[in-house]
Amino acid sequence: MEDKSYVIGIDFGTLSGRASVIRTADGAELGAHVVDYPHGVLESDLDGVRLPPDTALQVPADYLRVLADAVPRALAGAGVDPGSVVGLGLDVTSATVIPTTSDGTPLCELGDLAGRPHAYAKLWKHHGAHAQTRRLVDAAQQRGEPWLARYGGTLSVELAVPKLLEVAEADPEVYARTAHFVEALDWIVWQLTGEHVRSAAAAGYKSLRQDGAHPSAEFLEAAGFPSGPEALAKLTASTMAPLGARAGVLSARGAELTGLTSGIAVAVGNIDAHVTAPAAAAVEPGQLTMILGTSTCFIVSAEEFHEVPGMFGAVDGGIVAGLWGYEAGQSGVGDIFAWFVETCVPPEYHERARAQGIGLHDLLSGLAADQAVGAHGLIALDWHNGNRSVLVDPRLSGLVLGQTLATRPEDTYRALVEATAFGARTIVESFERAGVAVTEIVAAGGLIRNRFLMQVYADVLGRPLAVVGSSQAGALGSGIHAAVAAGVFPDVRAAAAVMGRRADQVFTPDPASVTAYEALFALYTRLHDAFGREQTIMHELKDLRDAASKG
Amino acid sequence: MEDKSYVIGIDFGTLSGRASVIRTADGAELGAHVVDYPHGVLESDLDGVRLPPDTALQVPADYLRVLADAVPRALAGAGVDPGSVVGLGLDVTSATVIPTTSDGTPLCELGDLAGRPHAYAKLWKHHGAHAQTRRLVDAAQQRGEPWLARYGGTLSVELAVPKLLEVAEADPEVYARTAHFVEALDWIVWQLTGEHVRSAAAAGYKSLRQDGAHPSAEFLEAAGFPSGPEALAKLTASTMAPLGARAGVLSARGAELTGLTSGIAVAVGNIDAHVTAPAAAAVEPGQLTMILGTSTCFIVSAEEFHEVPGMFGAVDGGIVAGLWGYEAGQSGVGDIFAWFVETCVPPEYHERARAQGIGLHDLLSGLAADQAVGAHGLIALDWHNGNRSVLVDPRLSGLVLGQTLATRPEDTYRALVEATAFGARTIVESFERAGVAVTEIVAAGGLIRNRFLMQVYADVLGRPLAVVGSSQAGALGSGIHAAVAAGVFPDVRAAAAVMGRRADQVFTPDPASVTAYEALFALYTRLHDAFGREQTIMHELKDLRDAASKG
Repeated sequence: MEDKSYVIGIDFGTLSGRASVIRTADGAELGAHVVDYPHGVLESDLDGVRLPPDTALQVPADYLRVLADAVPRALAGAGVDPGSVVGLGLDVTSATVIPTTSDGTPLCELGDLAGRPHAYAKLWKHHGAHAQTRRLVDAAQQRGEPWLARYGGTLSVELAVPKLLEVAEADPEVYARTAHFVEALDWIVWQLTGEHVRSAAAAGYKSLRQDGAHPSAEFLEAAGFPSGPEALAKLTASTMAPLGARAGVLSARGAELTGLTSGIAVAVGNIDAHVTAPAAAAVEPGQLTMILGTSTCFIVSAEEFHEVPGMFGAVDGGIVAGLWGYEAGQSGVGDIFAWFVETCVPPEYHERARAQGIGLHDLLSGLAADQAVGAHGLIALDWHNGNRSVLVDPRLSGLVLGQTLATRPEDTYRALVEATAFGARTIVESFERAGVAVTEIVAAGGLIRNRFLMQVYADVLGRPLAVVGSSQAGALGSGIHAAVAAGVFPDVRAAAAVMGRRADQVFTPDPASVTAYEALFALYTRLHDAFGREQTIMHELKDLRDAASKG
Repeated sequence: MEDKSYVIGIDFGTLSGRASVIRTADGAELGAHVVDYPHGVLESDLDGVRLPPDTALQVPADYLRVLADAVPRALAGAGVDPGSVVGLGLDVTSATVIPTTSDGTPLCELGDLAGRPHAYAKLWKHHGAHAQTRRLVDAAQQRGEPWLARYGGTLSVELAVPKLLEVAEADPEVYARTAHFVEALDWIVWQLTGEHVRSAAAAGYKSLRQDGAHPSAEFLEAAGFPSGPEALAKLTASTMAPLGARAGVLSARGAELTGLTSGIAVAVGNIDAHVTAPAAAAVEPGQLTMILGTSTCFIVSAEEFHEVPGMFGAVDGGIVAGLWGYEAGQSGVGDIFAWFVETCVPPEYHERARAQGIGLHDLLSGLAADQAVGAHGLIALDWHNGNRSVLVDPRLSGLVLGQTLATRPEDTYRALVEATAFGARTIVESFERAGVAVTEIVAAGGLIRNRFLMQVYADVLGRPLAVVGSSQAGALGSGIHAAVAAGVFPDVRAAAAVMGRRADQVFTPDPASVTAYEALFALYTRLHDAFGREQTIMHELKDLRDAASKG
């Protein structure tokens, strides 16, 4: 191990990108810089033209802006000589996909296609491919495709393949001119190295690549693609590389862009949530990383494949090479609390928060923290943004039950926090029931700062919660991959053991609360199954809503 | 009919009493005065001592303050000579009961019992007798008491008999010294006339008096009263009088108190909601009066008795002599909207309302009114204050289903208004299914001012809604009873035809909305039956809440 080597880790989020300078000896972040994407997320209009609902686009050039601005500034801030940087790694929101020409030029940069929505990057949360997703699932079920079990028996609307089928149907010209439909994480690596190398792990999670192959051309045609071989060509690259591998070396163009030295290692791109696992030193089998943010992502590895109902994806080498990586998710967590705070809290509470100089989340958390478990008399379902795991049903919706004329905002806030914790427990138990051991849980993400929430989670899950030791776990995780690609460590597990960081604090469950939550979790589960599996009321309501909105 | 005679109608509400001077020729209100009860409602403490939850007490002397202040001021305001007033009638919140000595002195006025909660008047909404109510129902079922069917097969916690049993068990000394446990409406008449005469109608609804008799002494002992005959003596008076009758004449003390002439007729006291029916000219069989306030009361008369599941009570002569009077109710309506506006609406909406110079209810109603039926994607259960009819279950609670990250306050507000309308439809259909015809609906109460709400009700009920023509229907209805007691009219039906008042406006259902609401009402009914009849989740949650609050 070199003692004084540094790596660059870059974390591309939904609204901004962050470059960090990281010391390989201990994972310390010595400097960082954040750059907001100039175009942000295009959701409502594109060059003055109204976009349809469920649209979320990005401009790929914004990612290059992060490379050009954030990397040099992070280095300057850290006081680190660019020459002592041995590698670069990056992670991006997953299933954010870009249609490009054969040389990697995004179609939206072609003069005659500018202003055509389907020529832009489709962000992870672009939800325009509902009908296509349904058709893909139907075709896979009818044909008995064996890989469907790897995605919990169904598919998410956010995956790359439904998005490509949407392009094929919504804008055949853009589709015809799409040489590559490439994950943003692979595209940025391509811009840095000049080589079109794809992450096999990301292809596994987002492009249905299993056991070394994408779905068959026959399947793709059965689902509606005009030509199966043509679709396959757009989804693949000649080089598929495992996680921890070197995708290539920094090209002269990449060096010019970033101010780094050409020839240093560039790691295979990774999914933003997944790099949190090495950052949290949680890549051994049974170590589950729970990234609590606007939504929550669950990452765990195991020696073998197990079929877990309702998980988001299982990929061989998906998190670290040599283990099966499992991903599950809750589609709304921090988003639900934010919605509640923005639209459901009366002025009196805003004034109290202002008077105390704290935010509304802190005020409500403080008021809610003093309650005995169950004292508010409420139970909620955390499906305001649908349910990803274990029901995989975006058309489910929220529910609050038990409100009385005495119910206060902090009561409902607590019930919503508890509902997300119950949802997390449902996922953890689903893993365990399927044979995927969960021996330790490490929390990461923005919500770990809320001590009240963390204690509720520990009490509901009934186990200690460790916490990641970096506030920028994404960039750290990418730095770990950079260090491995540069040869500082033999593999990600070894690098994570040295560079991964844990906070001193562990949230320990309170035995009385654990017991009290058993009864509430049993009620949650009854409602979960009633509205998620037995009743169709939530679907019928959405159908009525859609009909009313059209009428 | 005398041409220029006047009557006084006094409406005793939950927080204040209102005296009106009314012309018998047409029911016009010529003057009125409102007096707030000095002590209001005692809910949290009594002379500095903390009261248990579910307590709601009043001070009987406050009612006399209304007589002394409001009657002379109403007359002065009307410019009517007290000497031309021929009668007085009054109505009070029902099942508001006062423990008194044998001469009618409230026990709380005895020096040694002041400060003892059970020596005070128990307001209608005092809910301290849950355990006693359950025992009364159990005993009645076990003994096969035939009168139980008259109360929909169960009993409300608000009735007088459970409240008396609560006194017996919670404060045996106060119970022993209670000579009479008397409805406030009878007690005030007693103070005016010097005669202890009880309303047979109120006794029918609130003290289980059916077919000329209270429940048997054996039953009362089976339910837990220490002595059945003793309990019966407290619940009855030697004189029981029908509605429309004269309870007596104004005594010298009553004349001194009110400034009226002694010897004028004083009508038998009435239940506040029930006097609305004559005020709305809706006392013929099939005319249903719906009083929309903090809670909603449904009043309808029929020629025969029908067993209606979950109604609040059926009494021969209960609304007008000669017909069976049926009462049903929703225990939370305006209360739910008020709770929502107070605790669930963010500052931005408060500012908009202020800027427009309107109230929040008007703002939210205006925003909600523009939506297509079902466009908000929500459905709610209106049980925040329990369910009176048709489920008779105070331990049910509220539910909102369908919320997403895009749900706005006006969406939930509309869903809550709709939920109460669905609850109203459930009651109306329950009457009809049981054989009680509903040929016309007349709305009254404070919520009739909300045009958005009235249109939702018309659309959900699928029929035109007529509206009472007086903003003070209680006082008008009591004036009608005063006019009958004074002999101006032969009976209440004749008096109501002349003095009752309707507004010009009728709310007509919109055919497209009626159709659209069928689907939403079907979903409401499924949730209603699931959580009200099949599932026990709401009860279990309340049990957990109660256990947590004690622990």
